[in-house]
Amino acid sequence: MRMYDLIYTKKQGGALSPEQIAFWVRGAADGSLPDEQSAALLMAICWRGMDTEETLALTLAMRDSGQRLDLSSIPGLKVDKHSTGGVGDKTTLILGPIVAACGVPCPMFSGRGLGHTGGTVDKFAAIPGLKVELSEAEFLRSLRETRFANSAQTADIAPADKKLYALRDITATVESIPLITASIMSKKLAGGADALVLDVKCGPTAFMKTLDEARALAQSMVAVGTAHGMQIRALITRMDAPLGWAIGNALEVMESVEILRGEHGDSELAQMSFRLAAEMLIMGGAARTLEAALSTVRASIQDGTALATLRRFVALNGGDALALDDFRRLPQPGQIIEVRADRAGRVAAIDGRALGLLAMDLGAGRRDRKDVLDLGVGIRLHIQVGSKIEKNDKIFTIYTKRDAQVASAEFLRTLDVLPEIARERPWLLETVNC
Amino acid sequence: MRMYDLIYTKKQGGALSPEQIAFWVRGAADGSLPDEQSAALLMAICWRGMDTEETLALTLAMRDSGQRLDLSSIPGLKVDKHSTGGVGDKTTLILGPIVAACGVPCPMFSGRGLGHTGGTVDKFAAIPGLKVELSEAEFLRSLRETRFANSAQTADIAPADKKLYALRDITATVESIPLITASIMSKKLAGGADALVLDVKCGPTAFMKTLDEARALAQSMVAVGTAHGMQIRALITRMDAPLGWAIGNALEVMESVEILRGEHGDSELAQMSFRLAAEMLIMGGAARTLEAALSTVRASIQDGTALATLRRFVALNGGDALALDDFRRLPQPGQIIEVRADRAGRVAAIDGRALGLLAMDLGAGRRDRKDVLDLGVGIRLHIQVGSKIEKNDKIFTIYTKRDAQVASAEFLRTLDVLPEIARERPWLLETVNC
Repeated sequence: MRMYDLIYTKKQGGALSPEQIAFWVRGAADGSLPDEQSAALLMAICWRGMDTEETLALTLAMRDSGQRLDLSSIPGLKVDKHSTGGVGDKTTLILGPIVAACGVPCPMFSGRGLGHTGGTVDKFAAIPGLKVELSEAEFLRSLRETRFANSAQTADIAPADKKLYALRDITATVESIPLITASIMSKKLAGGADALVLDVKCGPTAFMKTLDEARALAQSMVAVGTAHGMQIRALITRMDAPLGWAIGNALEVMESVEILRGEHGDSELAQMSFRLAAEMLIMGGAARTLEAALSTVRASIQDGTALATLRRFVALNGGDALALDDFRRLPQPGQIIEVRADRAGRVAAIDGRALGLLAMDLGAGRRDRKDVLDLGVGIRLHIQVGSKIEKNDKIFTIYTKRDAQVASAEFLRTLDVLPEIARERPWLLETVNC
Repeated sequence: MRMYDLIYTKKQGGALSPEQIAFWVRGAADGSLPDEQSAALLMAICWRGMDTEETLALTLAMRDSGQRLDLSSIPGLKVDKHSTGGVGDKTTLILGPIVAACGVPCPMFSGRGLGHTGGTVDKFAAIPGLKVELSEAEFLRSLRETRFANSAQTADIAPADKKLYALRDITATVESIPLITASIMSKKLAGGADALVLDVKCGPTAFMKTLDEARALAQSMVAVGTAHGMQIRALITRMDAPLGWAIGNALEVMESVEILRGEHGDSELAQMSFRLAAEMLIMGGAARTLEAALSTVRASIQDGTALATLRRFVALNGGDALALDDFRRLPQPGQIIEVRADRAGRVAAIDGRALGLLAMDLGAGRRDRKDVLDLGVGIRLHIQVGSKIEKNDKIFTIYTKRDAQVASAEFLRTLDVLPEIARERPWLLETVNC
């Protein structure tokens, strides 16, 4: 087999066989194929695309480049969730404990964040002492004892994806539906869950800017999962303004705990988390209809079992469970600065991306992979899209440890304030099934 | 400037600025940019193309990566010719001496062959003693004293093209009109001629298989040359059957000399060579009309000045000029095998590509860049398309030094013999001006 022929075939718009794709992924991972040939093939894939069979073959070849978790010792259908990421997205911290409390094992692997705010791993890391890199034995124990486990992805999972992603990153070949699909799905399949709910974010603050793009990615991931014989469903959700009131790692833990306590139950964040959890319960066999699943979810909040599950998970993995009740035990917020409205009106839009970047400047996110986060810092939003504001109303509270002056004007520029607004802003744009 | 941005821009279908292209070519040539980024950009160029301004910028950046020949010490307009190559194409050996004999300086750089038969340099190398790698001083002396100079391209000419070509070769990015254009034109511009006639071959035996492809390449090269302020014109010529009766280096020298002696004057090879020479004379200011130019060409054959020019060029550059009169002084043909017709009819087609590969097997061409040629071996065709043949007529004479049996059937398979044929086969398909 010659790599040249693979590149030529794809350049001409042909399909690659599973054997050819496995040959490429093996050679890219072990360094036996030159990176320039992989780069050319990656760009040809951006150009010509891949069909479902090819995308599945790429997914499986990347999955098989590393370790796979065997969850067969855990009884029941294991259900995972994946989100393509957005500013203020802390749904994993909320729905993981809920789903587990409702009886469905929820094994999750998460990433560290790069750009704007932290990833799920960074948010969990804001709970003092909590171990966020679990060994296989620790992961299985957590899943067995609390039905919830969350760990940072180890280097052993899909190393070929890591290698190819680094290449895509410098060759402008990240944006490709089949490549994104295989990158996500290879890691999800290695994680060993039986079913998967996808939260594909769509909007100016998300990776997928338009509904067409988001739908294409959702359909591709659902097609690959289905072809592999896995239960899979995708929700396409709006991502423009930040999700919830908190941006910043410890602040996002607080908001998650508040929702598990039963506060902010009507917020978009709560609704989205509950709906995703309900989808997971249906997949896991714990409910038959969406209505039944949603009432099971709400019951786990009301009876305190969801929050209790999070407490047990934290305690089991070395974390300070008391911090969930006493937020003063979380990383300190530093200096507190209030930003007040410079005009009156209605908040028509909040630029989540811009706020995310401001949060990164505060130290809540990484500009570079090696940056160390300030887990306590961040931004609290006192408004949401649709809020009526008067001049001098409190808009943002900023928590910072940096000496640099915080320019209120920069924060206020993230808002679009109009005399009057009237628009529907559904958070759920579409669902995608196989 | 970041290479990532160039790749991204081209991937999205945008145009690169001359500064960006110069940045890339410099970085690719000096190794400061990683090959995987160049490979991704090359594939993105195959995908999205380049406009004339970008292609000219790429051409100039590659030209400026190396040495440029200064021909200003030679009086008059210097006219060059480039052919995209085909089996049996020895037009340079014929038209170079003709154009020079008619008063127009003709500076040419040629390549060694790879695949099927030898390149122009290999054909000249079949003349004993002839130096085919001339220094700049030798090249200029030859041009000054005989008005004709031909040398192998040195490594100093457009080294960035050499580097990028090696990358294209392993990444399936050779086939791209702007990349082919810049590769050819960068070397032609470095050669310093004022005007250029292009012979773009078209057909199953050529690089450009269809008239559309050939026209696109011709138009691209003419557009770039014109944008640079150079006189340039392209002829698109048919390439299916071999050109002339000779395939093989010494054999092709013999056929060229025969045409300069006035033999085979009505053959397609002679007509094509004379027409290309006539175009060059018009560009060089030695004739105003095609008719006048063609009669000047024919006069240089009839009065022997064209052949005398070749003799002077050979003698000046260390070659055995007597070999042009006594072909026994050329490399020896080896064993002689005759292939005879196994049926009667009309020759409807000759597969030039297949015959070229058979000639390569005999040692007339290189399978690998390091192969050493047998300059004497090759194939003589006793038929051409349209020939009426009887069973047992002599079809090919094969000259070989290899022990392996020559399978006559393989040679006969290159012919398509029908009971009767009637078709027009113009050799000139189209001309392309600015």
